[in-house]
Amino acid sequence: MTVTVTPSNTATPSSTATPSNADTEATLAELAEVAAKLDAANALAYTRERFLIPPNLVYLDGNSLGVLPAAVPAAVEDAVHRHWGNGLISSWFEEGWWDAPLRIGERIAPLLGAAAGQVVVGDSTSVQLFNTLMAAARLRPGRRVLLTDPAHFPTDAYLTDSVAGLLGLEVRRVPASEAPAVLAEIGGDVCVVSYPIVDYRTGELWDLPGVTRAAHGAGAVVLWDLCHGVGAMPIGLDEAEVDFAVGCTYKYLSGGPGSPAFSYAAARHQDTMQYPLTGWNGHADPFAMQDAYKPADGIARARIGTPPMLSLLSLEAALSAFDGVDLNELRAASLSLTGFFIECCDAALAELGFEVATPRVAGRRGSQVALRHRDAVRLVPELARRSVLCDKREPDVLRCGFNALYNTHRDALTAVRALRDLVG
Amino acid sequence: MTVTVTPSNTATPSSTATPSNADTEATLAELAEVAAKLDAANALAYTRERFLIPPNLVYLDGNSLGVLPAAVPAAVEDAVHRHWGNGLISSWFEEGWWDAPLRIGERIAPLLGAAAGQVVVGDSTSVQLFNTLMAAARLRPGRRVLLTDPAHFPTDAYLTDSVAGLLGLEVRRVPASEAPAVLAEIGGDVCVVSYPIVDYRTGELWDLPGVTRAAHGAGAVVLWDLCHGVGAMPIGLDEAEVDFAVGCTYKYLSGGPGSPAFSYAAARHQDTMQYPLTGWNGHADPFAMQDAYKPADGIARARIGTPPMLSLLSLEAALSAFDGVDLNELRAASLSLTGFFIECCDAALAELGFEVATPRVAGRRGSQVALRHRDAVRLVPELARRSVLCDKREPDVLRCGFNALYNTHRDALTAVRALRDLVG
Repeated sequence: MTVTVTPSNTATPSSTATPSNADTEATLAELAEVAAKLDAANALAYTRERFLIPPNLVYLDGNSLGVLPAAVPAAVEDAVHRHWGNGLISSWFEEGWWDAPLRIGERIAPLLGAAAGQVVVGDSTSVQLFNTLMAAARLRPGRRVLLTDPAHFPTDAYLTDSVAGLLGLEVRRVPASEAPAVLAEIGGDVCVVSYPIVDYRTGELWDLPGVTRAAHGAGAVVLWDLCHGVGAMPIGLDEAEVDFAVGCTYKYLSGGPGSPAFSYAAARHQDTMQYPLTGWNGHADPFAMQDAYKPADGIARARIGTPPMLSLLSLEAALSAFDGVDLNELRAASLSLTGFFIECCDAALAELGFEVATPRVAGRRGSQVALRHRDAVRLVPELARRSVLCDKREPDVLRCGFNALYNTHRDALTAVRALRDLVG
Repeated sequence: MTVTVTPSNTATPSSTATPSNADTEATLAELAEVAAKLDAANALAYTRERFLIPPNLVYLDGNSLGVLPAAVPAAVEDAVHRHWGNGLISSWFEEGWWDAPLRIGERIAPLLGAAAGQVVVGDSTSVQLFNTLMAAARLRPGRRVLLTDPAHFPTDAYLTDSVAGLLGLEVRRVPASEAPAVLAEIGGDVCVVSYPIVDYRTGELWDLPGVTRAAHGAGAVVLWDLCHGVGAMPIGLDEAEVDFAVGCTYKYLSGGPGSPAFSYAAARHQDTMQYPLTGWNGHADPFAMQDAYKPADGIARARIGTPPMLSLLSLEAALSAFDGVDLNELRAASLSLTGFFIECCDAALAELGFEVATPRVAGRRGSQVALRHRDAVRLVPELARRSVLCDKREPDVLRCGFNALYNTHRDALTAVRALRDLVG
């Protein structure tokens, strides 16, 4: 068997004939050489040192919680001792706490393909989703349908139902691939089109520009959940004329457990947005403590309450791991990793009942590979005991996320070998 | 002039005749002796060592941001390095991240006079207010009035208006002292009665049991904002049969800048609460990732999204400063501090145009003293240059907060002397 892996490959299924164990071992040995070559040639290899990865750990769960960036501990210690301990309340202005949600938003903006003044950070993704979806739906009064994904992440599904209940709307669920056709048919009834950029289970990448165009063609606005895309690929929000987006910061951005989410609103919508969460931080003149709410101009009106500063400053430090990183290069490196992982799975795991659930076409993949296997749930803790961390989604999905800032092709092969040892 | 200060004193205004400078200096010298005696006799003096107070700083802004508790730095460092850095995703269960919102809620419960199972922590006070007020109003369908405080903290005022707009309700604003009379008159129209326990400007303590009784007498439910009370006094939520309460954790609880807020819901209401923020953390079986939202039993349904763990674990460590503290003793110590401060103001500042805006009757004070002075806004930074930190509220209020876990009578006198030096 000849192994061919290129950074932007389209992985192809292996032969259906079951190879002998010796054949597979020979293939794995060849793949180890390929991995070494690809890792040696990786233009982003230097970014791995920006993370504190536990020794000998193969971490394929950065799509759930990114590893600790090297810049974080000192920043958090500084926030605790110098900002809080010594500066106390004066740090709200002298250490820039007050501006942090907007300042960190500006730092995330380039990762979204967003010009300045359109991103703010704070609160959880769930809260941001609710706040944005409510305000977005109210931009299209009289339209009664929220169009969304039947396989959306649960919090998106639940909050969409909640918003529909509050505003008297109807939720229609069709896969993103069918959304343009549905919009062509019933688009005049649709107020908001709400999809994830990447399916959290299968890792499939949806057509953000295409769905956005179709929504706009029908007069609707779009809200994208970028949780499984941001930090793993370029996202052209401005170029695609996206209206709204939210996303978490603890997956590929490695901001830390539960680090605050971001909210993007295109500049053209900001001054008509009526967010329901009218917290005082979003007021035009918050410290005047006025009786009536007057929303701030621009994206600042999407601020809500006092943000959790330690988690927020951890995120800010974490973002330095992206300094100087070209997002197209990052995307190429990510596709090389997931493509190589699929290649390894085909060579060594297909015969053991594993099925690759993620699209093999590079342009349709996010940065994770989902494997289906009847024992997936049991295998995750067994892998952990062999220092390979990934996660599961019931009933039969094993998710392997790759962050090209720190994962290697060797990681991919090690995980496949561990799975083979466990099941073979 | 004879100085008499007792831990539960009712401070009385000083003589209106202007004393000579020498008389005042003599009085201040006597007050210094009183301060020394009261500090020496303080049964809670041992808790000051539980905080890392910058040397020579008089910090009277713990009602805005509490000082750094000594237990926090090690806990945060452990969370960063061991939990996140080494444990990575496994820490969600192995280090108890997942249970933290409920576990920390249980730790706050005794400070609220709440039995177990009624408090959860997460998100900002603004978000908790919105979520709880929406759900509370929906418990009383057909009643169209939200009764609240005309001088409520801005975020409460803004979010009350937002909720009223969403649910088609009317907001009626009357001071807490007049609420029982208004409830006797129009109570049948009122769904939720929503007040702060302590006025954020004047420091006046409202009658939580009395207003709650009046609300219940009218068939309404109550929502108390405890931001300026929790951690400074016993709060008998269960005893007063309070329905709902929220509060921040970064003032008297010293959880750190923007540490997550708490939400209390009386056990009798929990299973009928329909919170609009149906984030996946509040689902009955969150990791089953089901399509439809099924709220968890009990207070867990008030959970929303993934909480900011570093800020949350900072709060948990901070709460150890309350270990072994009797809340009645804490309240007595707090009243001694604020009473003594008022005594000092009367003796040394009344003649310089300062007016005590906080009630002199101990039972009507929270744990801060507000002074009105035409130059209040200018005085705050000038005090800071003399190492006395307090804060201002436009246009003319200077707020001095006392946390009896770490403030001293000497702090109170030092602040008064500094003000006298600046204005005299």
